[in-house]
Amino acid sequence: MTYLQLSNEIRRKGSFLCVGLDTDVRLIPEHLRKCEYPLFEFNKAIINATAPYAVAFKPNTAFYEALGGNGWKQLEMTVSFIKEHYPETLVIADAKRGDIGNTAGMYARCFFENMNCDAVTLAPYMGEDSVRPFLDYEGKWSVILALTSNSSAEDFETLAIAGKHPEQLFEKVLRTASGWGSKENTMFVVGATRPERFVEIRAICPDHFLLVPGVGAQGGSVDEVARYGLNDHCGLLINSSRNIIYASDGENFAKSAAEEAANLASKMALLL
Amino acid sequence: MTYLQLSNEIRRKGSFLCVGLDTDVRLIPEHLRKCEYPLFEFNKAIINATAPYAVAFKPNTAFYEALGGNGWKQLEMTVSFIKEHYPETLVIADAKRGDIGNTAGMYARCFFENMNCDAVTLAPYMGEDSVRPFLDYEGKWSVILALTSNSSAEDFETLAIAGKHPEQLFEKVLRTASGWGSKENTMFVVGATRPERFVEIRAICPDHFLLVPGVGAQGGSVDEVARYGLNDHCGLLINSSRNIIYASDGENFAKSAAEEAANLASKMALLL
Repeated sequence: MTYLQLSNEIRRKGSFLCVGLDTDVRLIPEHLRKCEYPLFEFNKAIINATAPYAVAFKPNTAFYEALGGNGWKQLEMTVSFIKEHYPETLVIADAKRGDIGNTAGMYARCFFENMNCDAVTLAPYMGEDSVRPFLDYEGKWSVILALTSNSSAEDFETLAIAGKHPEQLFEKVLRTASGWGSKENTMFVVGATRPERFVEIRAICPDHFLLVPGVGAQGGSVDEVARYGLNDHCGLLINSSRNIIYASDGENFAKSAAEEAANLASKMALLL
Repeated sequence: MTYLQLSNEIRRKGSFLCVGLDTDVRLIPEHLRKCEYPLFEFNKAIINATAPYAVAFKPNTAFYEALGGNGWKQLEMTVSFIKEHYPETLVIADAKRGDIGNTAGMYARCFFENMNCDAVTLAPYMGEDSVRPFLDYEGKWSVILALTSNSSAEDFETLAIAGKHPEQLFEKVLRTASGWGSKENTMFVVGATRPERFVEIRAICPDHFLLVPGVGAQGGSVDEVARYGLNDHCGLLINSSRNIIYASDGENFAKSAAEEAANLASKMALLL
């Protein structure tokens, strides 16, 4: 999916919502837990219910790996289901991978070729050669961690880097990593929990899409993020996971998820 | 496995070798590729052949994920095989995970509870709360990236951090992360390709075990690493992957791997 296609899809749906599929087998409704593929059955219902309001889905690989080979299979089934039924939505594997070149190449092959995801989240610590194999895939996206939503982000991400132009580590990451590819194949993760930081971030990366977790359960606000983060092509994907997918644990869980997603999307429509 | 048990095992075997199981289905001998579980069949032969010379095995998760659910199953089978037949060896899942607390908890559960690995490699970028859930498991190890063996390590890992005591990012990571746990549950990844840096690293972490990739295919030297990196309890696990497991692609591959491992181990015995 290209930058323009994503931007147009956002305009068409009036939403820049990404639904996070952090599907925990211990938290899904009880009647689904006995299925052969409980995560997939849950996801299918959530995807069908929320697709009118979302431009992206973001399965979090940890929750599938926690079920071993069967969980991995359900991750693949989930991605296939989205690509088949909602090919206009972006599928982001939230995997936060990062390793030396030949290993990074295996991860890229796994998520882009085998699983046909559109995007993967990546950790920047090891530098360019850990991201390069992902950037080499045409039409695919590398979503690189910059300033994350967790409180320990301040351990390293906001360290002051010495030099002529003082900046923090996450700013250095944005500046350096935005030069590895372009706005056509690179996004950055910036948490919603520090909305005032979007001003500096937009000064470094005015055009790039930013994937923004931390709205909802983690306390970030859609209005605040949009105020500082929107650009001419929207340039934002705001993610909500737990608040949407666990809006209810009853048999009506999908309807509740749709209501929550519709609620966020209607806020977004006003902001666009 | 405790620090003392690992140290004693190194003394007993006269080796601090870790064999990296970067098992690529395209590189294993042809006669194995048609098995139902080709990676596992290959690993079993490599493990049996090299166990006398190794104190640790390090499966690299990327190579298993690249085969989807079946690959993940073979990773689990490999770990089970090692724990059953060679319980005295350390199993390190080379996964380089790093995510917010609740997701990190899922990864910890996956690798430590479900798969029964002894250790997992972790990326430090997101800070303490991305590592904490792993440290909370007694008798398990967090192996945190510090200075890696790839050339792009210089993009961020060696950046100068501003402050009263100037230091590079990887030194800050070592200093900060060594305070999260202790030498009993934390190791650091330091590449063999920069052996002179072990002097500064040992000044920060004299006692911690260091997992050292980059010997062999990547050009690092066992002698150089040992000269600067050994401590009173050895404190090193030197990893070799491709040079050992792909020593031959014929039917005698396991014998060739054993010879390569024995060769490295005999160097190590002299250094201990």
